[in-house]
Amino acid sequence: MMDVARSTETFAGPARKIGVFDSGVGGLTVLQAMLPRLPAAEFIYVGDTARLPYGSKSRATIARYAVSSVRFLVEQGAEFLVIACNTASALAIDEIRDAAGAVPVLGVIETGAAEAKASSTTGDVLVIATAATVESHAYAKALRGLGLRAVERACPLLVPLVEEGWIDHPVTNEVLRIYLLELLAESVEAGLDPDTLVLGCTHYPLLRGPIERALAELSPVGQSSIRVIDSAEATAERVAAALPFSSPPNIPGQITAHTTPSAPLLFFATDSVAKFRSLGTRFLGQPIEHVALVDLGG
Amino acid sequence: MMDVARSTETFAGPARKIGVFDSGVGGLTVLQAMLPRLPAAEFIYVGDTARLPYGSKSRATIARYAVSSVRFLVEQGAEFLVIACNTASALAIDEIRDAAGAVPVLGVIETGAAEAKASSTTGDVLVIATAATVESHAYAKALRGLGLRAVERACPLLVPLVEEGWIDHPVTNEVLRIYLLELLAESVEAGLDPDTLVLGCTHYPLLRGPIERALAELSPVGQSSIRVIDSAEATAERVAAALPFSSPPNIPGQITAHTTPSAPLLFFATDSVAKFRSLGTRFLGQPIEHVALVDLGG
Repeated sequence: MMDVARSTETFAGPARKIGVFDSGVGGLTVLQAMLPRLPAAEFIYVGDTARLPYGSKSRATIARYAVSSVRFLVEQGAEFLVIACNTASALAIDEIRDAAGAVPVLGVIETGAAEAKASSTTGDVLVIATAATVESHAYAKALRGLGLRAVERACPLLVPLVEEGWIDHPVTNEVLRIYLLELLAESVEAGLDPDTLVLGCTHYPLLRGPIERALAELSPVGQSSIRVIDSAEATAERVAAALPFSSPPNIPGQITAHTTPSAPLLFFATDSVAKFRSLGTRFLGQPIEHVALVDLGG
Repeated sequence: MMDVARSTETFAGPARKIGVFDSGVGGLTVLQAMLPRLPAAEFIYVGDTARLPYGSKSRATIARYAVSSVRFLVEQGAEFLVIACNTASALAIDEIRDAAGAVPVLGVIETGAAEAKASSTTGDVLVIATAATVESHAYAKALRGLGLRAVERACPLLVPLVEEGWIDHPVTNEVLRIYLLELLAESVEAGLDPDTLVLGCTHYPLLRGPIERALAELSPVGQSSIRVIDSAEATAERVAAALPFSSPPNIPGQITAHTTPSAPLLFFATDSVAKFRSLGTRFLGQPIEHVALVDLGG
C-alpha cells in the first residue's frame, strides 16, 4: 500500500504551487494547518463534492475518482500534491502516484502514522476512520511498518453528524460513547495498552473536544491517558520540511509567473460552489471567497 | 416541476419491462411493493451507488446523474420507468422525462402527494425528506396542486442511521424525536392541523415503526392522530393501474423474447456489487442474487 520508494524526501525543486485534494471540505483542516507554515506557497484545492463521500465506496471507484482529481491538479500546475483525504490515501495512493507522474505526493495516512509513532510510548494505537479506510487496514499496515500495534474502528455516523452541525450535541456525544466503548473493548480483547488515538478522517478534528471528553468519561479514573492526534498538523509539518520555500522568499525575482500574491488560494468543487463556501468556511476557519465549479466527469 | 401533460395515464402499450431507478438501494422498497402486483413484468433496477447520496447535492449534479441512469435503462429496453428516488423525482423529473423520450415516467413525488391527498381529512400534511428534496419544495408544490398545505423538514441523519443498521436504537429514536419535535413546532407556528406524514425518502419506510412511536410520544395524549404514509405502496398501485399486464398473462405466446421467467429481476449498481447485495437484501426483503456492475461515467 505505502510506496516508500517514492518518498517525498527526494523532492528539492523550486515548487511554489501546492495541490491539495479531498473528497469534500474535510481537507480544508489540512490546508488550514499548512497556511501559516508555507506563506510563500500558492495553494490549489479540489473538493470532489459531487461524488462524496468516498468512505462508503469501493477501492476501484475511489481510485477512479481520486485519479481524475489529481490529474486536474497536475494540469493546473501543481508541483507538490497533498492527498488530504484519508480514504483516498488509504485505498488509492499507488494509483494517485502513477497519475501524478513526477510530481511528489504526500498522503495523510503516512503522516498520521508517523505522528502516532512520535506520540506513543506503549506502542499501541487506536484508529477511527471511515468504513473504507478501516476495511483497507492502511493505518494498521503503516503503523505495523513503524513497529506499532493498532485496533481500528469505522465510525460512519461522524461525518453526517459534523455536516449536520451537531458538534457539541447530546446525540453526537452518545454516538461517540458507543463507538469508542466498542473500540476500547476490542483493544482490551486484543491485549493492547493504547496511549494514542488517531483521527483517521479529516472531519474528525472538528469533534476533537467531544472525543477527548468521551475518552475521559469512559476511563475508569475519569481522566484519559490516551492522546488524540490528527494528521492535519503532522501533514503540514512534513510538507513544510520537504519544501524549500516554507518561509517567505527573499528574492522576488524567483517568484514564478503563476504566483498571484493577492489570490493565493484557489478552490475548485465538483458540486455546488455555494455549499462548498458555506460548509468549507467552518473547516478552514476563515471565509472562503471564490470557488470555481469543475467537471471531472460523472 | 410536475409535468402533468406527460402523465402516465396515456400509456397503453404492451410493455413488460419496467425500469426502476434510485441513487442506491432505497428504491428496492418500491420494487418490493411492485413485485406481487406485477407478476408478469420483468424488472431492471439501477442503483447509482458510486455517486450516492443525491440528497445533499445540487440540482444540476442530480439531474446529470439521474439522466445517465435513465438513458441506461432505456437502452436496456425498459418500456416504463419508475423513478423510485425522491430526490431525483423532486429535482430532475423534467430532465428525466426528456431523456426517456417516448417511455412513460412515474416519479414517487406525484404518487406520494396523491396518497397524502387520499389520506388527509384536515388538508394539512407533514413531509420529511432529504435536504435536496426539501429545498426543492417539490412535495409542497405537488401537495398545493392537490389543495393541501404542507410543512417540510430535512432529516439528513436518517439515511446514515439506516445504513449503519441502527433501526431500533436509542440514538435513532432521539434523532427522530428532535427532527419531529421541530417539524411539529413549525407546523403549529404555521397554523396547520396535520393528520398525515409523508415519508419522502425511500430509506425512511425502514424507520416507520420508530417514527410512529416517536409521533405518539410527542403527542399530548400519548397517541398520535397522524397517519404515516410512504410512496412505495402508492407507487406500486399506480404502476399496476397504468399497465395492462398487472395480472399474469393467459396467452404465453405474448411473452416477448427478452422475458426470462427464471430471472425476472436484473440489478445494476455503479459501485461494489457485494455491498449492493448485502445492504439491498434488507430493503428488498428477500435475497438479491445477481448484481452487475455498470459504469455510467464518473
